[in-house]
Amino acid sequence: MKVLIPGVDGYLGWALAQHLAKRGHEVAGADCYLRRDWVAEMGSQSGTPIRRMSERLEAYRETFGKNLRFFRGNLTDPHFVLNIFQHFKPDAIVHLGEMPSAPFSMIDVHHATFTHTNNMIGTLNILFAMRDVCPHAHLVKLGTMGEYGTPNVDIPEGFFTIEYRGRTDTLPFPRQAGSWYHQTKVHDSNNVMMACRLWNLRSTDIMQGVVFGTRIDAMGDDERLLTRYDYDQCFGTAINRFVAQAVIGQPITPYGKGHQKRGFLPLRDSMQCLTLAIENPPKDPAYRVFNQFEEVYDITELAAKVQKIAAECGLDPVVRNLENPRQEAEEHYYNPDHKHLLDLGYEPTHDMEAELRVMFKDLIKYRGRIEARQEALHPDVRWSGSRDPVKFVDKA
Amino acid sequence: MKVLIPGVDGYLGWALAQHLAKRGHEVAGADCYLRRDWVAEMGSQSGTPIRRMSERLEAYRETFGKNLRFFRGNLTDPHFVLNIFQHFKPDAIVHLGEMPSAPFSMIDVHHATFTHTNNMIGTLNILFAMRDVCPHAHLVKLGTMGEYGTPNVDIPEGFFTIEYRGRTDTLPFPRQAGSWYHQTKVHDSNNVMMACRLWNLRSTDIMQGVVFGTRIDAMGDDERLLTRYDYDQCFGTAINRFVAQAVIGQPITPYGKGHQKRGFLPLRDSMQCLTLAIENPPKDPAYRVFNQFEEVYDITELAAKVQKIAAECGLDPVVRNLENPRQEAEEHYYNPDHKHLLDLGYEPTHDMEAELRVMFKDLIKYRGRIEARQEALHPDVRWSGSRDPVKFVDKA
Repeated sequence: MKVLIPGVDGYLGWALAQHLAKRGHEVAGADCYLRRDWVAEMGSQSGTPIRRMSERLEAYRETFGKNLRFFRGNLTDPHFVLNIFQHFKPDAIVHLGEMPSAPFSMIDVHHATFTHTNNMIGTLNILFAMRDVCPHAHLVKLGTMGEYGTPNVDIPEGFFTIEYRGRTDTLPFPRQAGSWYHQTKVHDSNNVMMACRLWNLRSTDIMQGVVFGTRIDAMGDDERLLTRYDYDQCFGTAINRFVAQAVIGQPITPYGKGHQKRGFLPLRDSMQCLTLAIENPPKDPAYRVFNQFEEVYDITELAAKVQKIAAECGLDPVVRNLENPRQEAEEHYYNPDHKHLLDLGYEPTHDMEAELRVMFKDLIKYRGRIEARQEALHPDVRWSGSRDPVKFVDKA
Repeated sequence: MKVLIPGVDGYLGWALAQHLAKRGHEVAGADCYLRRDWVAEMGSQSGTPIRRMSERLEAYRETFGKNLRFFRGNLTDPHFVLNIFQHFKPDAIVHLGEMPSAPFSMIDVHHATFTHTNNMIGTLNILFAMRDVCPHAHLVKLGTMGEYGTPNVDIPEGFFTIEYRGRTDTLPFPRQAGSWYHQTKVHDSNNVMMACRLWNLRSTDIMQGVVFGTRIDAMGDDERLLTRYDYDQCFGTAINRFVAQAVIGQPITPYGKGHQKRGFLPLRDSMQCLTLAIENPPKDPAYRVFNQFEEVYDITELAAKVQKIAAECGLDPVVRNLENPRQEAEEHYYNPDHKHLLDLGYEPTHDMEAELRVMFKDLIKYRGRIEARQEALHPDVRWSGSRDPVKFVDKA
């Protein structure tokens, strides 16, 4: 299949391009390196030494025996997007070209509005290009489990059938996002759902859990194929940050009480799931929603797991809770479905500890890169708008 | 109270400024005349001869004995918005500064993305200015009944309590909008709801029905105080377009089968309701939703009412259905609540025929202005993206 990956230079995008190449797909990608800029703006850099795109493309060609067709440009430009579609005519589009950080979106009004424009206009441009160039193509759209918030009822996959005052309907499950970033994903979901209905398009909207990990098998031993690994307060996700902290001898820092529950999955499972979605498109025009995670964990459990594997690697990190710079429920009911991907054959890794061992092995090698930007690990972006550095909860 | 009206140059904004002045409030407004540009882009003009802002402000001062403090600028500029808030320090903001047309938003990718940027970024800038300058102020946000779509169950006011798999929660009622414009209102609702939760702001989100009418009492006989009246395919709403058609001897044209049901209210009721919201702010930080309409009508009923009052005025319009350029259910269940405003004392006009008589009297005087732009009445913007002129359904 011909698969277009907007955002191919990112954490998921660069890994997915390789995973798909190995499975025989023809891949095109688009990017303008904004993720590199955003991370630099946060005073950080990728923990792994990522290469510039020209080197990446060279390594890709050597390893997979074919070119990745790369388009450099900004997805908020409708002409740029239309041009790609007219040239490449994709069968599937995996849209990874959005700004993916909740704290970055909460910095100030400029970051909030930038996140809206960047994420939503890019998606709209893709939807119109699909309508006008390849209406039978399949859009695999990256959303987030965070769209749902933490309701006091089970979370279905996108839709639920309810009775209300004696009548029945199947309705979109209400979304209650907790940051501007998460809101843009909710807005995107609403927009993609409508475009599918009005224009008979096909889309799978992926409510993805939090991804962690440094690599997938396709990367082999070629350092040029490594994907980025962020640990700063904005672009580092929970487990990735915990591992980076342990590697440089800093405390592992859950936020608040640390009993927030979220769905998580390793990078390799994310690739497996996205590929299942790509290779099993809806036969007819449809908007479908997949909840994509391996298992639900409590943040404190995760911190303990990271601590345990760190010890195996000769490290001795403590766990110290920080004030929560976010506003979120720290103790709550959480029971999301995730059946659609299992029905398609998803085989969860179910071995977080093995994954953590790989991560420590990779990152201990690049410890110096994390140490050089360690200030970026400590949060000061608060949901209230203040930038007061966040304090430890204990008095140690 | 000090009330700020972003969008004060528009159909509702200019009327509301006068209604509030008459009730003793101090009004400020912001605008950059985009509505005038959009209507001109559609090849149309206001049916009523609206004046430039300098004349409007002069008439306002003469009639109400005080100044309307006017700020000229674009709400998508955060500095412009912050500056207004810092100078005027409003107690209430009635946000009417959005692009309000479904068809305009459906023209092409540029209009779709413009609608998103214009509407959502303006609202975000206002929310941040509230947080940083006047966190106790009350945002009266204009949404639309169209946010809900036409579900097969009753439509509550914003939230509903449901049981799902044996557990219970009170959740936002799912939104299923049918155009990019309507989607931006859904997105706004989600954003305003979150800002109220995170930052302890106060907002009333008004799910308004379709407004019709030419005037409110405060305007008296001063032509300079008339508000705009649009009849073109994009900015003319159903009843307003029907009356304009009847006035120039054109057929009245319901879309499709004409059994779409919507909530409607006269301009004077819209002013009454908005004023009730303004004068009764939530005491504590809260996000509340009001469904704002007088009564639900079927489009065909409305066409017949317009035809009847037209006949009283010596006009003899026929009713001819057009193909529906939109994609919407033409026969559906529709039962929205609207109790919150009645609880605050809303007294619905309940006399559409009297309102229609006023409209015909006003517009017959300006018939020439409508005749001069009558091509703008005929729709060609289709939800499919095509611009083929819409045909009559009969063969007459």
